[in-house]
Amino acid sequence: MSLDPSLASWLATHDARLLDDLGAFLRIPSVSARSEHKADVARAAEWLHARLARIGFAVETIPTPGHPVVLAEWRHAAPGAPTVLVYGHYDVQPPEPLELWTSPAFEPTVRDGRLYARGSVDDKGQVWAHVAAVEAHLAVRGALPVNLLFLVEGEEEVGSVHLAPFIERHRERLRCDAVVISDSAMFAPGIPSILSSLRGLAYFELNATGPNGDLHSGMYGGAVVNPATALARVIASLHDPDGRVAIAGFHDAVRPFPDAVLAQMRTLPFDEAGFKRELGVDALFGEARYTTLEKLWTRPTCEVNGLLSGYTGEGAKTVLPGKAMAKVSCRLVPDQDPETIHRLLERHVAAHTPAGVTITVTALHGGRPWRADLSGPLYEACARALASAFGRAPVIQGEGGSIPVVGDFERLLGVPVLLVGFGLPGENAHAPDEWIDLGNLRNGARAMAALWDELARTGL
Amino acid sequence: MSLDPSLASWLATHDARLLDDLGAFLRIPSVSARSEHKADVARAAEWLHARLARIGFAVETIPTPGHPVVLAEWRHAAPGAPTVLVYGHYDVQPPEPLELWTSPAFEPTVRDGRLYARGSVDDKGQVWAHVAAVEAHLAVRGALPVNLLFLVEGEEEVGSVHLAPFIERHRERLRCDAVVISDSAMFAPGIPSILSSLRGLAYFELNATGPNGDLHSGMYGGAVVNPATALARVIASLHDPDGRVAIAGFHDAVRPFPDAVLAQMRTLPFDEAGFKRELGVDALFGEARYTTLEKLWTRPTCEVNGLLSGYTGEGAKTVLPGKAMAKVSCRLVPDQDPETIHRLLERHVAAHTPAGVTITVTALHGGRPWRADLSGPLYEACARALASAFGRAPVIQGEGGSIPVVGDFERLLGVPVLLVGFGLPGENAHAPDEWIDLGNLRNGARAMAALWDELARTGL
Repeated sequence: MSLDPSLASWLATHDARLLDDLGAFLRIPSVSARSEHKADVARAAEWLHARLARIGFAVETIPTPGHPVVLAEWRHAAPGAPTVLVYGHYDVQPPEPLELWTSPAFEPTVRDGRLYARGSVDDKGQVWAHVAAVEAHLAVRGALPVNLLFLVEGEEEVGSVHLAPFIERHRERLRCDAVVISDSAMFAPGIPSILSSLRGLAYFELNATGPNGDLHSGMYGGAVVNPATALARVIASLHDPDGRVAIAGFHDAVRPFPDAVLAQMRTLPFDEAGFKRELGVDALFGEARYTTLEKLWTRPTCEVNGLLSGYTGEGAKTVLPGKAMAKVSCRLVPDQDPETIHRLLERHVAAHTPAGVTITVTALHGGRPWRADLSGPLYEACARALASAFGRAPVIQGEGGSIPVVGDFERLLGVPVLLVGFGLPGENAHAPDEWIDLGNLRNGARAMAALWDELARTGL
Repeated sequence: MSLDPSLASWLATHDARLLDDLGAFLRIPSVSARSEHKADVARAAEWLHARLARIGFAVETIPTPGHPVVLAEWRHAAPGAPTVLVYGHYDVQPPEPLELWTSPAFEPTVRDGRLYARGSVDDKGQVWAHVAAVEAHLAVRGALPVNLLFLVEGEEEVGSVHLAPFIERHRERLRCDAVVISDSAMFAPGIPSILSSLRGLAYFELNATGPNGDLHSGMYGGAVVNPATALARVIASLHDPDGRVAIAGFHDAVRPFPDAVLAQMRTLPFDEAGFKRELGVDALFGEARYTTLEKLWTRPTCEVNGLLSGYTGEGAKTVLPGKAMAKVSCRLVPDQDPETIHRLLERHVAAHTPAGVTITVTALHGGRPWRADLSGPLYEACARALASAFGRAPVIQGEGGSIPVVGDFERLLGVPVLLVGFGLPGENAHAPDEWIDLGNLRNGARAMAALWDELARTGL
């Protein structure tokens, strides 16, 4: 089965009007981080509310202690049809620095097949692709093949702080068979992609204290432990020379990725030279037996995020610091968990702390890693839908970062989550000149239109 | 020969008046670091000028681009008598924080045999001891046994920046057989001391740069060198596990201290438990085969003075820093020199820098170590003078810090420098409640009075 030609044709015929709609959505500066944009954020919710109501959804804009959630429901599919929840967000990052935008952030502009505007890829454009897909169904057939819920929040760019409580409070109403999220990027141009994993996070602050104050490095140096040196030695002990994390027990909980997933990753056309060029480095790093993508997607890390000790101003000050601080965070892979990593790191640091200094390990933030079950009907349906819309089979890719809401949905609703995005690397999601490729935007709408037919056919 | 009883008697008889004089000197807030005290600094110079002129010196207050130098000369000793230059400073450290002073910083107050005031030990009190000694000679005998120059500057607490050029410009006029400096502390109460060595300094800034900007630690962590981690590993490589500096070639130029000096150091009553208590540490550190005093006085070090990288604010920010900085300084012992150490450190850092990161080593400040020739007549005369004034033989001690002017005098005037001080450890030279022990102050004046007789007798 492939994309229904009548849906494809409707989307093509109404392309200009649909993009005008998106333009109106993008013109609203719904910057959730800025209180002066509170009314704009509310206006974006209203716009989306009206848009979904117009095409036949039952819509409610539900307040939270922060910005509201737009919840839209269409529950008239044939008995036995699956119910799917689509998650997205209508808030955007601040546009600053404004002077680096080629065209104004909130004046959508097309150049070279790219739609430039704040929110174009993150995430209004991707929400729009979903809206266009359902509008095509409802316009052509008067119905959707599955029951659909849209949950579109206004606080993703400020940490989704009220989302988990919202899901919990509305758990019954949000009951569904699957969650679909389009808020990510494809592997590369022309290559539709499904996200297979996210790394978790365990973030710590290490505080080393030695003498009861800063000392004169001449009068005391050589006879007193320097906390900055001690902390540097602890940091140096976190990896073996190959770059593998050397904390005892750190890898114990790591569940290997399936061979098929790893084999597929090795076939991805990753441009290592371009990656190095982009970063301005002449060499990459890490465990020699893994490829760069494997390192980024399937391997846990331990990174220094910050260092502070002693005198850091201009010139020379001969201080032997009384204390030193490091921020250190681990990216985790299934089935590592932040609490165990905290315990292991504490033990490791204690074992590497010399007499005369104390080093504490404080957990600041944690999130579990996530891995999709790629064998289910949800993923198979999506793979077919992407293939029919983009003209080539999708690839499976990992993600080195963390998206906490994925775990929240899975845990609170007990259903699988599908991460399928239509952005591209380099589309400046949080930077000036944010853009989305119009071809991917259109193919995204076609793919999602096909997905609902696929899911109705195979069930969930 | 011992302290001339008539000099001792004169000093004892005039003790109250001499201390009143010192009180007047200490009341002048000659804080060289603060422009609002410029007039006070000038007033302190005038006071000293008048004081030395009154007792028979030819005095000139000579401007510099900063604060003036008071240069006082008495050149009427018997033909063939040696000429000695006494160096000191009339400027003081800022008194802040004022609220931590028990009595006001510029209101000299005696409590329990201690004279409390800013400048009491550093260095007005010690300058006063010299003035009192020469006044005793001139009052009792109408003459000094040696030719004496006082060079008292007003910029010691701000780095003595104009002193070396001053010495150079006035080299002929400053020609002498020895320089005597009293601006240091005795080893412990009741133990007169001569300083035998100073450590030098080689101060560097290390800058590590990796990717061309801060990266997201999730999206890039594990495949890109973290400059903070790389810098920590370099710092960790600077010492072996025993605490010995592990830079190749670092110790090549170290000239061992004479066995007699080391043996004498081992006899000093060093209170290791008290030292730990003072610093609030439960263990000391460093090369196991050296005592604490040997580590501080005779061994070179490599200390981290500052660290800065990435995010150092509150909470968690998942940044993989694009750069990292460390301030690192080495204390040097004879015959190490800062330039060679710079070259060796550069080589060491390069050998420990992983691919994908660049670490530069910039020299910020350097000073050569210094060691006295303890066998000359200058030291022997001083040892006898101290013994007669304090009632016990002096000890020889080292000093872990650096006093750059010592090297300047030696280099520019080509004569030996004698460092003999009357302070005590813990007299708060740069802190609130600065004080000097009145007994040491009086014995210091007696010792210096005896020193001139000793030098006249033995020659230089």
